[in-house]
Amino acid sequence: MPIDQLLFALALVYAAGRVGAEAAERLRQPSVVGEILAGVLIGPAAFALVPHGDQPVAGVLEAMSELGVIFLLFMVGLETDMRELRRVGGMASSVAIVGIVVPLGLGFGLMLLLGDSTISAAFVGTAMVATSVGVTARVLRDRRKLSTREARIILGAAVVDDVLALLLLAVVSGVAAGTLSWTGIAILVLEALGFLVVFGTIGRRAARRFLPQVGKLKITEPALGIAIAAALILAALASKIGLGAIIGAFLAGVIMGDPNEPDLEAKFLPLSTFFVPFFFVYVGTLVDIDVFTSLGGIALALGITALAIVGKLVGGLPVTRLGRRSAAIVGVGMVPRGEVGIIVASLGLSLGVIQHELYSIVVLMSILTTLVAPPALQALFSKS
Amino acid sequence: MPIDQLLFALALVYAAGRVGAEAAERLRQPSVVGEILAGVLIGPAAFALVPHGDQPVAGVLEAMSELGVIFLLFMVGLETDMRELRRVGGMASSVAIVGIVVPLGLGFGLMLLLGDSTISAAFVGTAMVATSVGVTARVLRDRRKLSTREARIILGAAVVDDVLALLLLAVVSGVAAGTLSWTGIAILVLEALGFLVVFGTIGRRAARRFLPQVGKLKITEPALGIAIAAALILAALASKIGLGAIIGAFLAGVIMGDPNEPDLEAKFLPLSTFFVPFFFVYVGTLVDIDVFTSLGGIALALGITALAIVGKLVGGLPVTRLGRRSAAIVGVGMVPRGEVGIIVASLGLSLGVIQHELYSIVVLMSILTTLVAPPALQALFSKS
Repeated sequence: MPIDQLLFALALVYAAGRVGAEAAERLRQPSVVGEILAGVLIGPAAFALVPHGDQPVAGVLEAMSELGVIFLLFMVGLETDMRELRRVGGMASSVAIVGIVVPLGLGFGLMLLLGDSTISAAFVGTAMVATSVGVTARVLRDRRKLSTREARIILGAAVVDDVLALLLLAVVSGVAAGTLSWTGIAILVLEALGFLVVFGTIGRRAARRFLPQVGKLKITEPALGIAIAAALILAALASKIGLGAIIGAFLAGVIMGDPNEPDLEAKFLPLSTFFVPFFFVYVGTLVDIDVFTSLGGIALALGITALAIVGKLVGGLPVTRLGRRSAAIVGVGMVPRGEVGIIVASLGLSLGVIQHELYSIVVLMSILTTLVAPPALQALFSKS
Repeated sequence: MPIDQLLFALALVYAAGRVGAEAAERLRQPSVVGEILAGVLIGPAAFALVPHGDQPVAGVLEAMSELGVIFLLFMVGLETDMRELRRVGGMASSVAIVGIVVPLGLGFGLMLLLGDSTISAAFVGTAMVATSVGVTARVLRDRRKLSTREARIILGAAVVDDVLALLLLAVVSGVAAGTLSWTGIAILVLEALGFLVVFGTIGRRAARRFLPQVGKLKITEPALGIAIAAALILAALASKIGLGAIIGAFLAGVIMGDPNEPDLEAKFLPLSTFFVPFFFVYVGTLVDIDVFTSLGGIALALGITALAIVGKLVGGLPVTRLGRRSAAIVGVGMVPRGEVGIIVASLGLSLGVIQHELYSIVVLMSILTTLVAPPALQALFSKS
């Protein structure tokens, strides 16, 4: 790999992200919107300045973006109190379940009505289900709203959402590939629940006992070192069993969020300052606008986007007893589909069950939901 | 790229590095030695646990290691005062010149005496020339010795050494490839000197004027963001014109090292805590001990290593008027060849001018010089 090409690409992505964030903030928009749009600009949809496809540098950019969202969710986990997360567990589960069933039904129904095949319609519906919690988590962090009850409900719902979406994707892609195995799916669910329970209880207790001892280590910054290792290992394990890597990273953060080590957050902040923009710029580079040739395609994309938004807003209804504003915040917070919708669509494309134009439509839905949520969230928080 | 495989590999390399560092510190050895040996253990020479060769994850590990040494040298640059660097300029240049001419002569002479071809001997000599300043910089940082005069001489000499080694490598590889062009080499030298002069003067003045304004930016951690971008861009530019990327990063650090922003160092520390171990573990994984089959090969490797050490110790002689201990520190500080010697040998191998066994011998020389210097440096600093 040519080192200068690698470094120029990293510098470009990073600088574009920061410039986009600065521009967005000056327009009173959330940083994350500026970063995604910067990614669209330097990506294949516009100037095509970043390496993509099979180039080795493209692999590095993908890895940096993965580390970006992992460190973001780890950081969010650090700032999340597990007891308070449990306290909203019931409401978060309702939000997740409604926010999965409604978009799935709407997307699946619309595509069937339009004459799409059952399996293709199921893929579109599934892509409309999965929330990309990174976007919302970023806005909540930037606006210092992570300690609100709405934030905890969103984070709890995202964990439940991820487990249910994993299950749904396993069923749908199993049917598409003709390899559906209920035993396999049962194992998947047991692994996912086992992971959450084991690390949420035993892992937490181990951390409580071990972390106060790290001062005895002789390496520099021992607590930070252990935090990094924990984030990577739990993200890897979660990813290995089919859960999102970010769920593992979030759980690692919750476990490590020890009141005895209050400056771990401060020490982690530079790492997230460096890595996080790589994720959002990368999400922007996933857009490929060229593929939109027909007006019908654009109309369908806007229709699916509208249903994807409505579906998640309905998901906020279980929160109504905390007030309509809280329900709206939670609903909007679950709207971004980000890279998760794109990943589901890519899987459908590679299995040959959805067509390229439909793939592009799902990508546009993922990006539009991702761009729409942050300003709406910001507006909801600013009006009291 | 499978995300779980990527994350496991990153976790393994990082954790192995931290465990190696802890073990080394407990044995009163420098962390860096433990990290390199951890790399040898998990690399192809022993347990072969890390992806290598053409796998995409291997490319990511290489990129992480490159960022590690870039951020390390940027950090060292931040802590280096440019005026004091200039003050030792003459002495540093003498150290660099002697430390290049002597090892080159010794290596070239020995190989010719042993009946090697002129061009192969020239490559071995060139591999014995280039100092890997990262190792020494790390030890100096860890032991808080960066502000000593010896440290400044070593850093200044490393910059001069890099320019001269670039020149030498251009000549030798030009001859080997049959594409030697004196015009090309003149351009190379002008580019290198132009880079150092332009960024050392205009860049410095621009930084002095612009940096106090960063507080007006609306993004989070603006100073850190600009520091990161500067490190990446100058490293990329330096690499592009043939200088080492770390020279660009070091210069970026010197330029950004503003007394008005004293906590930039503190904010950068977590980034180097994360990235730096990737570099030293990676250097360890470059070793492939399997190739040593003959006793003659081992004897030759030890002989070349001895000459490589003696050559750089002689390079410390211009510092004798500051005392013998200072001369020894500077000489030892220039001893590690690290990844630079390995890169030169790889180039010779890919050009077909050195044989595989000789390549392995140069790799062993690079690693042995890298492992020998840190404990010696530590011992020299501890006796006063």
